[in-house]
Amino acid sequence: MTKVIKNGTIITHDLTYKADVLIDGGKIIEIGPDLQGDEQLDATGCYVMPGGIDPHTHLEMPFMGTYSTDNFESGTRAALSGGTTMVVDFVLPGQGQGLVDAMKTWHNKSTLASCDYSYHMAVTWWGEKVFDEMPTVINDHGINTFKHFMAYKGALMVNDDEMYASFSRLGELGGIALVHAENGDVVAELSAKLLAAGNTGPEAHAYSRPAQVEGEATNRAIMIADMAGVPLYVVHTSCEESHEAIRRARQQGKRVWGEPLIQHLTLDESEYFNKDWDHAARRVMSPPFRNKQHQDSLWAGLQAGSLSVVATDHCAFTTEQKRYGVGDFTKIPNGTGGLEDRMPMLWTHGVATGRLTPNEFVAVTSTNIAKILNCYPRKGAVLVGADADLVVWDPEKEKTIQASAQQSAIDYNVFEGQTVKGLPRFTLTRGHVAVHDGEMRTQEGHGEFVKRAGNGATNKALSSWKELTAPRPVERTGIPATGV
Amino acid sequence: MTKVIKNGTIITHDLTYKADVLIDGGKIIEIGPDLQGDEQLDATGCYVMPGGIDPHTHLEMPFMGTYSTDNFESGTRAALSGGTTMVVDFVLPGQGQGLVDAMKTWHNKSTLASCDYSYHMAVTWWGEKVFDEMPTVINDHGINTFKHFMAYKGALMVNDDEMYASFSRLGELGGIALVHAENGDVVAELSAKLLAAGNTGPEAHAYSRPAQVEGEATNRAIMIADMAGVPLYVVHTSCEESHEAIRRARQQGKRVWGEPLIQHLTLDESEYFNKDWDHAARRVMSPPFRNKQHQDSLWAGLQAGSLSVVATDHCAFTTEQKRYGVGDFTKIPNGTGGLEDRMPMLWTHGVATGRLTPNEFVAVTSTNIAKILNCYPRKGAVLVGADADLVVWDPEKEKTIQASAQQSAIDYNVFEGQTVKGLPRFTLTRGHVAVHDGEMRTQEGHGEFVKRAGNGATNKALSSWKELTAPRPVERTGIPATGV
Amino acid sequence: MTKVIKNGTIITHDLTYKADVLIDGGKIIEIGPDLQGDEQLDATGCYVMPGGIDPHTHLEMPFMGTYSTDNFESGTRAALSGGTTMVVDFVLPGQGQGLVDAMKTWHNKSTLASCDYSYHMAVTWWGEKVFDEMPTVINDHGINTFKHFMAYKGALMVNDDEMYASFSRLGELGGIALVHAENGDVVAELSAKLLAAGNTGPEAHAYSRPAQVEGEATNRAIMIADMAGVPLYVVHTSCEESHEAIRRARQQGKRVWGEPLIQHLTLDESEYFNKDWDHAARRVMSPPFRNKQHQDSLWAGLQAGSLSVVATDHCAFTTEQKRYGVGDFTKIPNGTGGLEDRMPMLWTHGVATGRLTPNEFVAVTSTNIAKILNCYPRKGAVLVGADADLVVWDPEKEKTIQASAQQSAIDYNVFEGQTVKGLPRFTLTRGHVAVHDGEMRTQEGHGEFVKRAGNGATNKALSSWKELTAPRPVERTGIPATGV
Amino acid sequence: MTKVIKNGTIITHDLTYKADVLIDGGKIIEIGPDLQGDEQLDATGCYVMPGGIDPHTHLEMPFMGTYSTDNFESGTRAALSGGTTMVVDFVLPGQGQGLVDAMKTWHNKSTLASCDYSYHMAVTWWGEKVFDEMPTVINDHGINTFKHFMAYKGALMVNDDEMYASFSRLGELGGIALVHAENGDVVAELSAKLLAAGNTGPEAHAYSRPAQVEGEATNRAIMIADMAGVPLYVVHTSCEESHEAIRRARQQGKRVWGEPLIQHLTLDESEYFNKDWDHAARRVMSPPFRNKQHQDSLWAGLQAGSLSVVATDHCAFTTEQKRYGVGDFTKIPNGTGGLEDRMPMLWTHGVATGRLTPNEFVAVTSTNIAKILNCYPRKGAVLVGADADLVVWDPEKEKTIQASAQQSAIDYNVFEGQTVKGLPRFTLTRGHVAVHDGEMRTQEGHGEFVKRAGNGATNKALSSWKELTAPRPVERTGIPATGV
Repeated sequence: MTKVIKNGTIITHDLTYKADVLIDGGKIIEIGPDLQGDEQLDATGCYVMPGGIDPHTHLEMPFMGTYSTDNFESGTRAALSGGTTMVVDFVLPGQGQGLVDAMKTWHNKSTLASCDYSYHMAVTWWGEKVFDEMPTVINDHGINTFKHFMAYKGALMVNDDEMYASFSRLGELGGIALVHAENGDVVAELSAKLLAAGNTGPEAHAYSRPAQVEGEATNRAIMIADMAGVPLYVVHTSCEESHEAIRRARQQGKRVWGEPLIQHLTLDESEYFNKDWDHAARRVMSPPFRNKQHQDSLWAGLQAGSLSVVATDHCAFTTEQKRYGVGDFTKIPNGTGGLEDRMPMLWTHGVATGRLTPNEFVAVTSTNIAKILNCYPRKGAVLVGADADLVVWDPEKEKTIQASAQQSAIDYNVFEGQTVKGLPRFTLTRGHVAVHDGEMRTQEGHGEFVKRAGNGATNKALSSWKELTAPRPVERTGIPATGV
Repeated sequence: MTKVIKNGTIITHDLTYKADVLIDGGKIIEIGPDLQGDEQLDATGCYVMPGGIDPHTHLEMPFMGTYSTDNFESGTRAALSGGTTMVVDFVLPGQGQGLVDAMKTWHNKSTLASCDYSYHMAVTWWGEKVFDEMPTVINDHGINTFKHFMAYKGALMVNDDEMYASFSRLGELGGIALVHAENGDVVAELSAKLLAAGNTGPEAHAYSRPAQVEGEATNRAIMIADMAGVPLYVVHTSCEESHEAIRRARQQGKRVWGEPLIQHLTLDESEYFNKDWDHAARRVMSPPFRNKQHQDSLWAGLQAGSLSVVATDHCAFTTEQKRYGVGDFTKIPNGTGGLEDRMPMLWTHGVATGRLTPNEFVAVTSTNIAKILNCYPRKGAVLVGADADLVVWDPEKEKTIQASAQQSAIDYNVFEGQTVKGLPRFTLTRGHVAVHDGEMRTQEGHGEFVKRAGNGATNKALSSWKELTAPRPVERTGIPATGV
Repeated sequence: MTKVIKNGTIITHDLTYKADVLIDGGKIIEIGPDLQGDEQLDATGCYVMPGGIDPHTHLEMPFMGTYSTDNFESGTRAALSGGTTMVVDFVLPGQGQGLVDAMKTWHNKSTLASCDYSYHMAVTWWGEKVFDEMPTVINDHGINTFKHFMAYKGALMVNDDEMYASFSRLGELGGIALVHAENGDVVAELSAKLLAAGNTGPEAHAYSRPAQVEGEATNRAIMIADMAGVPLYVVHTSCEESHEAIRRARQQGKRVWGEPLIQHLTLDESEYFNKDWDHAARRVMSPPFRNKQHQDSLWAGLQAGSLSVVATDHCAFTTEQKRYGVGDFTKIPNGTGGLEDRMPMLWTHGVATGRLTPNEFVAVTSTNIAKILNCYPRKGAVLVGADADLVVWDPEKEKTIQASAQQSAIDYNVFEGQTVKGLPRFTLTRGHVAVHDGEMRTQEGHGEFVKRAGNGATNKALSSWKELTAPRPVERTGIPATGV
Repeated sequence: MTKVIKNGTIITHDLTYKADVLIDGGKIIEIGPDLQGDEQLDATGCYVMPGGIDPHTHLEMPFMGTYSTDNFESGTRAALSGGTTMVVDFVLPGQGQGLVDAMKTWHNKSTLASCDYSYHMAVTWWGEKVFDEMPTVINDHGINTFKHFMAYKGALMVNDDEMYASFSRLGELGGIALVHAENGDVVAELSAKLLAAGNTGPEAHAYSRPAQVEGEATNRAIMIADMAGVPLYVVHTSCEESHEAIRRARQQGKRVWGEPLIQHLTLDESEYFNKDWDHAARRVMSPPFRNKQHQDSLWAGLQAGSLSVVATDHCAFTTEQKRYGVGDFTKIPNGTGGLEDRMPMLWTHGVATGRLTPNEFVAVTSTNIAKILNCYPRKGAVLVGADADLVVWDPEKEKTIQASAQQSAIDYNVFEGQTVKGLPRFTLTRGHVAVHDGEMRTQEGHGEFVKRAGNGATNKALSSWKELTAPRPVERTGIPATGV
């Protein structure tokens, strides 16, 4: 049973042209004019683009004895609904737990996924076991990206020497370092001070994590990565301070990427000042939303190429769960949804306004991250031989975002009431039509794990440069005897 | 007669993979394993890349009653010899001359070109005729890029109001503005002062055009382009000051590109202090070579993406011609060669050191400029349907650069004595093998003019944004009577 | 008749201490505890500070056949009322008019001034006469600061080569270059375009002079000053773009100062969107008011020292005069008041908020500019031997700004309705008590012209550096014969 | 017995004028023309300036069971010899030791000082005792500056949460935070890696502490100070990275000062590549010397005001002591001399070249730090009532720096062989002539401890601003019940 997408305009990160796409066995097998297949998908008036990749989700993430409510089942359904065909989740080992062991837990969670997925490995503690398992994780299990939390003191946070050790190991092994960049020490101190002063509401969450705290940690991670000789990917870059650190680093030739979230691009801190506690608490995530000026910085970064990827950090808790933090903002589960809305929101605010070209849209929602993760062109491409992860995008299709109509399992949506123009007509995951003209036809368990090899082109280039410029001892004769 | 490139690794701006390339009628007709053709080119151990595009040459450029010595014949031979398969030259209308009329002169010059070429149109004066012919030049003659000289006062230079008028016109028409960015007024004043002080040697050329003067003009061009709503391409970005202006602009979401030259990336100002007048004078070009710090800035810009293209400004004068300026540096013809050496020099200093990945090499030597010029993927790509402008690159092939062995018609080479590693085994221009394992097999007149349509994706996006943010009048009632 | 200021706390740019101040013959003759004089001024609870210096006023400025309404009589009264004891106005020669001749006209205007004053000389055209008179103006007439308009095309504007020539001359003579930094060419083009599009209201004035246009010109003036070897003072720095250029220059060791206005620090562009035409038109000045983000930049510049002086550009036109521009915003006389309110507004928004220390307040309202103008410590100081230009500042005194109560001769005030806390109890001009506990006791004609010598410490240092780093010819033998 | 300095030109940070200075009882009692005193010091042809203040010395500093060789006796002699009349040393409490207790040890060391001195208190560990003693240290003992080491892991280093706690406490108490800014974790890791790779020589010291590591820590300290609401002083700012962080902070209105050392302004990293082990080891200090580009940045910072003070970090070890580190660079005692040469070196390279005006020289060697430390105008001023800490500076006096002729007790000088022009004719410490026309007449024990009160103007302003902008809770009704 082949499928053909007819009469559309293919848009990739670097090309725009009219052609049909023929699919067989989950792969694209031909691209060209007048193709025929067993099943036809009419793309008239539409763009045929690589399906979105969201490299930052937390599905069924353990939290305070419970879990984030969107799991791989509802989460991947939400993803497909919005044109996203691959998610990358985070394996979070417990303290002392082995990496491979933790990974198995995540493989258990993801069995019902409707679209393909991969994992980043989190380095939540440092020790010989972690050091030793890293090569296995990269070479045998196909995970080349390792996340480090600089925040969440007493839980996930690692210190500078641990980061240096881990980054150095990754540099040797051809992996990539990821960081959640906020200074966890300072966040903890500010949080305590705010609580002590009676600042207990959700707005205090924002007060406790100012942009400076994120900018500092980003800057620090960059320095450590540079010293360790490893490429660095900074997740959820939310502010000018962090973006400034990233682009300063890039301007020195460092290999650093930044990832703004669709939330930070389109929502601002005024949400936390809403008089309705639930409204504010539902927007609690780390880093918090910022102001218009920070948004402008992020948009410009996407235009300039100093920021590379738009993600969501999708981690969806119900209002019920959010209310754990009534009376103490530090207990509000951190996270918002976004998987379903990332692509339409970015199209509406990015492409329709002229900030981004359609090709840049593809780049920042799919291709750039596929390259960084080293799964391009299997993913992120419309090429013969690539996986048929595709979205047929109707630029004229409109809707008003409503929690009541969403795929996500939670009871609200942070974009509630916003009108988006530009939506999938079809979404295909390895050839399966999961969204068919507005109708959900996802298949639980259809999704597969995507292995990603280490030592991509950027790693190789960086290693060459580091080798070339490595410290060399001065040759000396006649060194005196020691004074001691 | 088909040709097949066998056993190579294809490297494009975004892909690296093993495949054969089948060519027919000047086009790539198939890419894949185990292809057969009438003629085989063995690419074992080699990379198959899009041929280089040098977007900045001055072949047979009129100057003081004579012409730059490399014309389209020798110039394109030099290009092919080094793996470059397309050059873009500048049509320079005389004062009062029509654009189309001048273009014809250039078409006459280029009849013997061995590789494909295109033109930028220079706006050397401003008037109704220029305004009126612009649409024709873009829409009928396929030239969408218009160069403006901010230097060469009294000759090519245009003023700010002329630039604004021209840029605005280009914004409407979907063209792109190019600038030679140096403050011509200040250069003229400094030159006069230096001459008056007895600074007559070639080093005074460098003194007369300090980096600040280039940075200022770049900054000014960017502002004018922003006000006029047109994308801007800054040729021969040679220094941190200019690069700083460009990246500051990009960081505000402006559509600006910068083009360092291979000379500025690898040579420095000490050349002008050489005791041999000829040595120094042969390096006289505008902007002049800078120092190591500026070089670092340019390299980092290529890595970060804040600079986009590596060119040459190839404009080759003989020593004899250079000597016009003995006793008066302002009379030394401005220009150096580079066409033949751009690709090997960049590979040697960029890829072999780890500064650039091979994919980035392709991007900055070919693909990026093809996109900017709007001739991608006909040029700059290894795709079915693209022109078979290809270079089969042998990363192990070495040579020492020597004027005595070069294709260029001049008697010296600014890179004389430098060893490069990484050279073409074959260069193909629309399927014709112009370089065959070190042997030149160019065909005079094989080259064709490449038309490039206006209103590319960047133009469209920028226009949308400018329309969205355009000034709107305040609606008022009860406006008072005028006081006059 | 001596006077003594008793029981106050003296605040200068660098000291805070309790002492009395004894005055005789217009000078401070003693500072210390328990001084006695013929007349006592009680400063209990007050700060005794150097009187303010406003280095940027246009009193009785010719405009379209009429004059700005505040002349030296009402203007200096307004100044004293607000604690300012010296103003610096601009001599504006007509096209072709000699500098000295124009200066005489200004001396005629200023005969009724109530406080001391000085002039900047404007270079409104360039020629031998200007070149020749410059030494006289500096050495004989005590004017060492020369203003250049980069805007007002067709009227006051000078071009880059004229600026370079003038700046070079000033560098030799030990003068200081001032610029009104806006790109006049682009302003003219934007204005024409706006009018053509029916944007005729006062808001179009702001549209026609965006921050980029100011930033560009600032950057250009800095480059030209650097090439010419002269210190540069940028008047009415209103925006981040201009401030950025200034601090970038300073960070390269360049001698550049920036002058924000109190209006730009406290008012924003929303004023131009007021539905009342008169309200908007009364705020029309160049550069126009900007937004909050620009304000933050200016405040931080004062804190950091990258901006040096707070001025007003006081140029007061009546509503009647403003209405010349009904139907055509380019005809609205440019200028707002501010002389009377600068000090209280800056205290209220700067010192009371903690942005500035009281010493920094003195620095930016008085001492810094006295040093730059080379009239320190005659002005700007509380030192024995200095002119007794003093303000006894009551930090508890409050008022609501009202045009109906002001000294300025116009019928409105751009700060109308704002409450300020911190006002003069007494203002002394060379010992004369011009403001006595709220009562005006100014003396027409009391003011004297302040001569200011050239070649201050900054000029000397800059000249040494420029001499040290000047271009030197390469010594060569065996220079070939010329090729021509 | 009064003394009078006759016929000199007084230069302060803001004034240049001819006057005599009359001294009695260690104080300046009169400044003016034609003064008479019991003893005359002829300042003809000289400048009379405030004596230098070196805010960064380590005299008799404990190290590995021995002490830095210059103690308060030889160290202050060296200081006076070079025109410096006050030093500020660092009290270094042991782990667990009380602040006051440690201070007593330092008071014991300093009994033989020949010039006045003060202390910074180091916070080398954090606990209730430190917290509790801070008010005493500030209010009773007159030490308002507290140093924090971000390097020297396992010894002096404090972590981010300790820094935040200490900084917050200082913010409340009106103190000032100082930091040694290098990332101690990364330095430790790099050192271990270098040693493991056989990089054991002095050059590896420089490799182990790259500029990035300093820049990062500076940036981090600034963020923490901002969050804690305390002014920050960054000692030994040696590089562009650190300077960049400082000026970025200042440009946001933050209260941060940077202190380059005379060594970093004039010496570079090539010293470490000297083939003579002793030569290289004698230059080992932290941060290490950098390159020319960093030097340019530091000089420009002094010109621009983004850097405030020139110090030495004088910590003098003999060659014998340096040789403790033969075979292991981490054991080379860190520190170089400079006390004696700071003023002449800065005059020679700063004032004589035109980089700095003479007034700026006074500002950066004396007055600025006196203000920051809150001992101005007792120190750092030429004012009636100020301490007679003065240097009579002969701009024509020359010497070649030689260890054999120095006051410092060590056997070499890092400036050996450099010629300086501009030296003290006389140096007075509280009226005592310690240097008399080249002859040393220091008095052991003449020096006194200088108390410095907390809560200066900058502290007050910053506190006001922080209070004004402090987080405020949102008033809400209808908060839901907690979900737990």
